[in-house]
Amino acid sequence: MASRDHGDPGDAPTIAPPLTAVANPARPSAAEEARTVAASTNTATLASLSADGDPWASLVTYGLLGGAPVLCVSQMAEHGRNLIRDARASVSIVAPNPPDDPLANTRITLAGKVRRPSPEELSAAREAHIVGVPAARYYIDYSDFSVWVLDVERVRWVGGYGRMDSASGTEYEAAAPDPVSPKAAGAVNHLNDDHGQALLAMAQRLGGYPDATEARCEGADRYGLDIRVSTPRGWSVTRVGYVEPIDSIEELRGATVQLARLAAPSS
Amino acid sequence: MASRDHGDPGDAPTIAPPLTAVANPARPSAAEEARTVAASTNTATLASLSADGDPWASLVTYGLLGGAPVLCVSQMAEHGRNLIRDARASVSIVAPNPPDDPLANTRITLAGKVRRPSPEELSAAREAHIVGVPAARYYIDYSDFSVWVLDVERVRWVGGYGRMDSASGTEYEAAAPDPVSPKAAGAVNHLNDDHGQALLAMAQRLGGYPDATEARCEGADRYGLDIRVSTPRGWSVTRVGYVEPIDSIEELRGATVQLARLAAPSS
Repeated sequence: MASRDHGDPGDAPTIAPPLTAVANPARPSAAEEARTVAASTNTATLASLSADGDPWASLVTYGLLGGAPVLCVSQMAEHGRNLIRDARASVSIVAPNPPDDPLANTRITLAGKVRRPSPEELSAAREAHIVGVPAARYYIDYSDFSVWVLDVERVRWVGGYGRMDSASGTEYEAAAPDPVSPKAAGAVNHLNDDHGQALLAMAQRLGGYPDATEARCEGADRYGLDIRVSTPRGWSVTRVGYVEPIDSIEELRGATVQLARLAAPSS
Repeated sequence: MASRDHGDPGDAPTIAPPLTAVANPARPSAAEEARTVAASTNTATLASLSADGDPWASLVTYGLLGGAPVLCVSQMAEHGRNLIRDARASVSIVAPNPPDDPLANTRITLAGKVRRPSPEELSAAREAHIVGVPAARYYIDYSDFSVWVLDVERVRWVGGYGRMDSASGTEYEAAAPDPVSPKAAGAVNHLNDDHGQALLAMAQRLGGYPDATEARCEGADRYGLDIRVSTPRGWSVTRVGYVEPIDSIEELRGATVQLARLAAPSS
């Protein structure tokens, strides 16, 4: 699913390919990744069309109705007038806590058309926005503000350098945010601090890097672990999928113990 | 210059108007504010036009050539193809270290047209991008990447709730980033920690709030101090401009001592 668009750019550090098959490369789909990013924050940048058809980028806040961003913008602002005139819009959402290199960060674009909520869904849309943006209760009912739902037609997810994919609006709406990754930071630190040998064994025996000399966990989601490996040939990132997907952070310990047993040199 | 677009939204906390004239309301222009925001980070969201004319929002990195954002994007990415097809573009830049309420944060939109640098300016544009984005040295010369300069035609600055203004591209290019505000955090903390009585006197005698009961400095720039005041009538923010604008952080202490003397009850 993931693709590397550019290859090795000149004098960049060498990325080592795996030497053996990755036992279980399972990972979230682009639609799932996008739902996770959308659920991770409440600010986005809206691209709308100005009167002359020029693209206009502006900060917006949002809540979520299913996966659909619910905006609340003023007609006194250019983006508010733009949406009234032309419903075509997209939002770019960047995952919080960016790394030092901003292009290594995860971000998505959700593109489609905005519409005013129907009378039946207005209450739910209004509530969804306020859940995402508590301060909105001060202005959401003010006469110049309007609530808009972005019906997502297509999705682009970029998970950092060389990890990117597209999804349809239907796939996006059907997917769910990852129940594990937003809560996994503590467990990931614990794995790195106390179970480095187990991670190295996973990288060597399950991750395709039998020559790995060091392995660090960079993230955990419902399907498995992202592992960064060092080898005499250079560095890389690989994937160690669990035996079965998990549905909550509480299941993470059991799933990683199972992986450690599978990868143990004595097994 | 600043304007309040919405007034008092229902049950929001009451904002107290000043009771006397503000002695010196001098503050940066919208063009200066925008230059300061542009110089404060290296990431923006680009709005470009997709093949069907739809607006496409996407994360980009940038450096600055004068005030013009210099982008470096891949033709393999949708935004890269968009810029080749249609030069109309804008970027939204959000000031770093956002407050809890994202709409209280400062942000700008710079709108105009992108162009490839001329042969004479290519070296300077390339260098400007790398100064802003050091990691770009790994890919800037890769064949699918192109450097683009955004010629800014119009500017919108929003300084949080109720503070906003526009500027022309000419005003923006002629302005300079504030030499004081990005370095003023330590001095602002010192004023609040050790000179609360002097700030209160400034708010009462220079800031238009003779009934202020508390005053906190929220920022300092080359023209003066932003002061948040509490009064029995509610809270507000006001401005206490220096006797003369300053050109460096080293001059801030002298300028505030001068203000404290002007505002001292014995003066």
